[in-house]
Amino acid sequence: MRATTIHAPGDIRFEEVPDPTIKQPTDAIVRVVAGCICGSDLWPYRGENPIRPGATIGHECIGVVEEVGSSVSGVRAGDFVIVPFCHCDNTCPHCRYGAQSACVNLGMTQSGQGELARVNQADGSLVKLPGAPDASQHAALLALSDVMPTGWHAAVCAGVGPGGTAVVVGDGAVGLCGVLAASALGAGRIIAMSRHESRQRIATTFGATDIVAERGEEGIARVKELTDGVGADAVLECVGTDDAMTTAIHVTRPGGGVGFVGVPHGVELPVRKLFETNVGLRGGMAPVRRYLPDLLERVLSGAIDPSPVFDLTLPMAESADGYRAMDERRAIKVLLQP
Amino acid sequence: MRATTIHAPGDIRFEEVPDPTIKQPTDAIVRVVAGCICGSDLWPYRGENPIRPGATIGHECIGVVEEVGSSVSGVRAGDFVIVPFCHCDNTCPHCRYGAQSACVNLGMTQSGQGELARVNQADGSLVKLPGAPDASQHAALLALSDVMPTGWHAAVCAGVGPGGTAVVVGDGAVGLCGVLAASALGAGRIIAMSRHESRQRIATTFGATDIVAERGEEGIARVKELTDGVGADAVLECVGTDDAMTTAIHVTRPGGGVGFVGVPHGVELPVRKLFETNVGLRGGMAPVRRYLPDLLERVLSGAIDPSPVFDLTLPMAESADGYRAMDERRAIKVLLQP
Repeated sequence: MRATTIHAPGDIRFEEVPDPTIKQPTDAIVRVVAGCICGSDLWPYRGENPIRPGATIGHECIGVVEEVGSSVSGVRAGDFVIVPFCHCDNTCPHCRYGAQSACVNLGMTQSGQGELARVNQADGSLVKLPGAPDASQHAALLALSDVMPTGWHAAVCAGVGPGGTAVVVGDGAVGLCGVLAASALGAGRIIAMSRHESRQRIATTFGATDIVAERGEEGIARVKELTDGVGADAVLECVGTDDAMTTAIHVTRPGGGVGFVGVPHGVELPVRKLFETNVGLRGGMAPVRRYLPDLLERVLSGAIDPSPVFDLTLPMAESADGYRAMDERRAIKVLLQP
Repeated sequence: MRATTIHAPGDIRFEEVPDPTIKQPTDAIVRVVAGCICGSDLWPYRGENPIRPGATIGHECIGVVEEVGSSVSGVRAGDFVIVPFCHCDNTCPHCRYGAQSACVNLGMTQSGQGELARVNQADGSLVKLPGAPDASQHAALLALSDVMPTGWHAAVCAGVGPGGTAVVVGDGAVGLCGVLAASALGAGRIIAMSRHESRQRIATTFGATDIVAERGEEGIARVKELTDGVGADAVLECVGTDDAMTTAIHVTRPGGGVGFVGVPHGVELPVRKLFETNVGLRGGMAPVRRYLPDLLERVLSGAIDPSPVFDLTLPMAESADGYRAMDERRAIKVLLQP
């Protein structure tokens, strides 16, 4: 098959690689209908994470089941499925507790930007659609593979509830999905911290009631002003830098919560500040499978539509262009078609 | 009046000081019926917190209202009251949110180990009893001033719930109250980490189902073993050291919660570990007033009895002996009588 590979920082190729095959009876092979580039793919692209030269890259996709292992019974060839980026058996103690991203049989999609992807624990991971969706629905469904459940997880971890005030730090695709999640979970006021006009527009479409363009101490002061000096009930940290975490903690009201889903890079948590304010902190890799049935229903019913986070669609063969566009912030999130 | 004062590390005296007076119309003066020594009083005693020589010390007490400011309407002279160590108006946005320890009019008892104590925000802070309690109830009621609500807060922050597994790190008075709280909140299994036989006995009386005497990596391994390798749903960190926090985080199951109430000293939070495990973290100074009505009812009905944490009672004039006993770990918690 052909798939997107990474050879060195900045060196993305679309080339012939061996087809993934069934290795375990619990595996499935999915023919990718749409894949995309994740903000976290930019870490190795920028040389900030280690690279195994020639490795396939991409962990988000939707597609049609091509083949299943001998013990798979929940899906079969021809089923249209959402592939959660982290695979889980959905039966182990961690999964049953709702921590599917800590499954004892955790796996991860390796070639979501290629023509075929192997899914470990197909029965526990894949969620199939009633039938083949219309192509117009692909983008919204693809968002369920990672970015939408990750934004949702931030909102859940922050404790967003009906009528409360939420702040979203970060206007990447995850942050924007966090705005959509906060809105769907009933937040009465949603303050999106964003400097980019195109992203501010999407945030507003997704339910943001206020935009704060300032950053750092100015941004904190502005949010405090908007909340009568109190701070927000729930704050979604969707970046992963120390600056973003500092902002998140400082705009949270005493006793409120921060949900963080940006992979932490250089973050130092101020334990004394957390103690003094009783601000709660919870986050991590999203247990996608936990949220998928609910989110799929919301997308299929039209209750939520995360598709606007994809503002550039390219043929998979041009994935290198997609990486460049995201790296240079010309695109929020790039959808790739095989 | 006579009150306990601190002059230097290790230098505790009981001496004549000026009577506290009504300074604000919202103040009240309480004649102390029983006070006690807090684990946190040992920080200045050991020279680890700054000291203002001659300052009164002690923030936990119960007593009888002696005098009230002109705007106080909820209590009057003669009322028997619980004095929460942190005073609050119970009406500001933080109080209404349940974060009374971040009240915009926050105050703190300054002479709880003396004959009289001033309470700021008397209406918001003090909780009065239906009548004068029997002397046999004093110890249990005194525990409501700080130590019991603090253990309760750890359990609430950790997310203790019916049927779940809780671990309590720390066998000081707060940790023991944490065991009692976890039990009252319905935990099905309570693992108390304690090396001291007398404290283990109280933990068991309070509802601990298992005792782990090992510490550090051995202690973590033992808790993992007891929980089938999964870890606990809710972990109460009741010490405040880095070792205790490390233990707490490592014995929590993925997606579980740590509630921390030990004032952090040298704690570094492992943000990557928290991210990888989705372990939530929440804690701080307990919003005592929030829990008081419920806890008072539980004590008066006999549903909980935290009094065993007081294992030494002294006349207030011998408070210096009380500090020595706690410093040398000869006593868990010392009750002082005027």
